Parts: sequence; C-alpha cells; structure tokens
Amino acid sequence: MADEVILLDAYASVFGMRVRVALAEKGIKYEYREEDLRNKSQRLLKMNPVRKKIPVFIHNGKPVCESLVIVHYIDEVWKDKAPLLPSDPYQRAQARFWADFIDKKLYDAIRKIWPAKGEEQEAGKKEFIEVLKIWVPAFLDIALITFYSCFHACETLGNFSIEAECPKLISWAKRCLQKESVSKSLADPKKVYENLLEMEKRLGVE
Amino acid sequence: MADEVILLDAYASVFGMRVRVALAEKGIKYEYREEDLRNKSQRLLKMNPVRKKIPVFIHNGKPVCESLVIVHYIDEVWKDKAPLLPSDPYQRAQARFWADFIDKKLYDAIRKIWPAKGEEQEAGKKEFIEVLKIWVPAFLDIALITFYSCFHACETLGNFSIEAECPKLISWAKRCLQKESVSKSLADPKKVYENLLEMEKRLGVE
Repeated sequence: MADEVILLDAYASVFGMRVRVALAEKGIKYEYREEDLRNKSQRLLKMNPVRKKIPVFIHNGKPVCESLVIVHYIDEVWKDKAPLLPSDPYQRAQARFWADFIDKKLYDAIRKIWPAKGEEQEAGKKEFIEVLKIWVPAFLDIALITFYSCFHACETLGNFSIEAECPKLISWAKRCLQKESVSKSLADPKKVYENLLEMEKRLGVE
Repeated sequence: MADEVILLDAYASVFGMRVRVALAEKGIKYEYREEDLRNKSQRLLKMNPVRKKIPVFIHNGKPVCESLVIVHYIDEVWKDKAPLLPSDPYQRAQARFWADFIDKKLYDAIRKIWPAKGEEQEAGKKEFIEVLKIWVPAFLDIALITFYSCFHACETLGNFSIEAECPKLISWAKRCLQKESVSKSLADPKKVYENLLEMEKRLGVE
C-alpha cells in the first residue's frame, strides 16, 4: 500500500516551507491542504491539539507536529534518498544546534521588526542582523532558507537592506534558490509582504 | 585512546541536569566543571561563543551546545548502551515534539512564577499547571524530569501545590527518582530554592 501523506500548511509560513522543501528533496508525493489560520479546521485542531499550529504532517493517519520534528521524521522514514542531516554525529549535532538557534532567535527578532515601530523596531533590526551575521553556512540549510521569503517584507517594513549587511548570506540564499526543491517550495516574497500588509489592516496596526 | 569528556555546567541548571542524567544512563565517565554564571570562564565563552550558556559538552576537545542537542549527540555516539530515544521513527518524533514543547512552554511559565509577583505570577502559575497537565508520560523523560528540581521553589514562591494539581505527574516523577541515574544527577530542590533566594537578594527583588 502506498503511503498516504497529507500536509496541513499555510502558504506564507516559513515553518511550513521547511516541510515542503524536505518533501521536494525526497521526492515524496503529498496532498497539500491550505489552512485558514483565522478559522482553523477541525482536522487541524484534532491533529495538533496541544499547539494548534501548522504545519502538521499526517503520515498514514498519524500526525507529526513542529516543523523541525517533521523534517527529522521525514529524514528518518525516507532515509534512502537525499539525506537532510549529515551522517556524522558531530555534524548532526552542529546542524541541530543551528536549527535550534534559528528557531529561538531569528523568529523572535523578526517579530520585533513587525508589528513594532520606532525604538523597538530598531532594536529588532539590530538583533536580526546580529543573528544573520553569526550564521554559519552549510548547516541544516532547510531551517534557515525558508526565512528568505520574509526578508523582502522585513527590509521594506524596517527600511534596511539585508544584502548590504550580510552579502555572503544572500549569495548563499541565491545559490539555494537555484535548486527546484527550494524555489518551488518557498512562498513568493512579494506575497508574504502583501499578506503582512493585509494583516496589518485587519489588526488596525498603523 | 579513551574518550575525553568534559561537562561545563552549573549545579542548579535543569538543562545541565539533562546531560548529567544522560551520561549516568550511558555510564560515561566525565570531568564535571562547575561554572560561575556571574563570571563565566574563558573556556565557556570560547566553547559556546554564540549562546555563551551552559551546559557545554566537550568531547575530545570539540564542543556540543544546547542540552537536547547534547542528549541527542550522546545517544548517537554511545548508541550501544541504554538508548535514550525510542527506535521507532514515529515514537522518536513524539519524543522530540514533547521535548520541544517543554523547552518552549514550561521554562517560560516558570520564568513567570519567578521573579514576577501578583497578577503576572498568577498567570504564570496557571500556564505552568496547564503545561504540566498536558504532559504525556514516557516520552523523553530526560527533558522533563530535571524540572522536578525546581518544583519545590515554584511551589514555595508561588504558594501552590503541584501534587494537588497533577498527582499523576508527581507519581511519575517519584518513580523516575528511584533510578540512580536520575536521583544522583538532579540538584537538591532545597538548594535550588536557596539559590533563587540568594539571587533575589543580589538582584534586589523584593
């Protein structure tokens, strides 16, 4: 029997994109279901009752939640094709360290750029750039590259250039984007920005 | 050549204790180095330049940082003895999900119980109990059991009983503590509480 693979996701989610890249790398066919995050489906609430968040990866009826946990799971189940983590335990530990760092630090910094304004936004920009400058290439690219989709929004809303601050990072991102598994899985940066503007309107943020 | 294993740690750290339990489970001999977190050693800053935090696990001169990353690493390198993660990929994913949940939610809730007061503390207590009630036994016990060391401090500072709210969790914790690898690795709850009181004095928190 073929595997039944369903992904509950939202187009602009940097976390959902990680799973999409992993599935594309492995060449796994799956059913994509877009969730309306303002009106979450019963299926989502049932499949992820603890966090109630996308992405949720449903493999033969059983849910796996949290993007990096899903990426790990996909790598362990479909282990014969396109390994996502290095085989050496020390290299794996480094990959996990950076993935954890991105999760804990980068996302927090982005949340300070938007919807904050003024001093808080300036502090967020500084923190964001600091985190990106620490970045070491080649470790668990999947964890970081999906954030590229929101760089345009960050730059526009924060009025700064990431390329000017971190040219090597942007060169790396552009190289990653040459892979179809990445370019086809990432949300369009302009759409991510438009989504944010729409959300601002809805939330009444000025 | 025998492995050289050094652990940079701090006695009362729930994150450091995870590594101590893992090492005890595997029966790995190591050199323990207590860090003064107010005056971090050059070695710590050099070995974990990104986060500058304990625990740092140094294996034959090479550092691994972040407690769960270290536990994963230890499990992968010393794989023949006392597996720390289940062998089934789905069970592994569940273990990783709960470990991630504990890291993201439980620690945050504890930080709201102390040093906060009044309404914020009440909210912290509510969140803390909610997180503990969600807990599902048998998944990556190492990630959670070390928090037992600070339950006494939380109860005393927050004036509530965790056992009254979550009796099954406390029964589970007591069973875990019957294992020497756990009981000998965890900090004394009274010392953890005394450390907090001392820190309060130093910080001038009333």
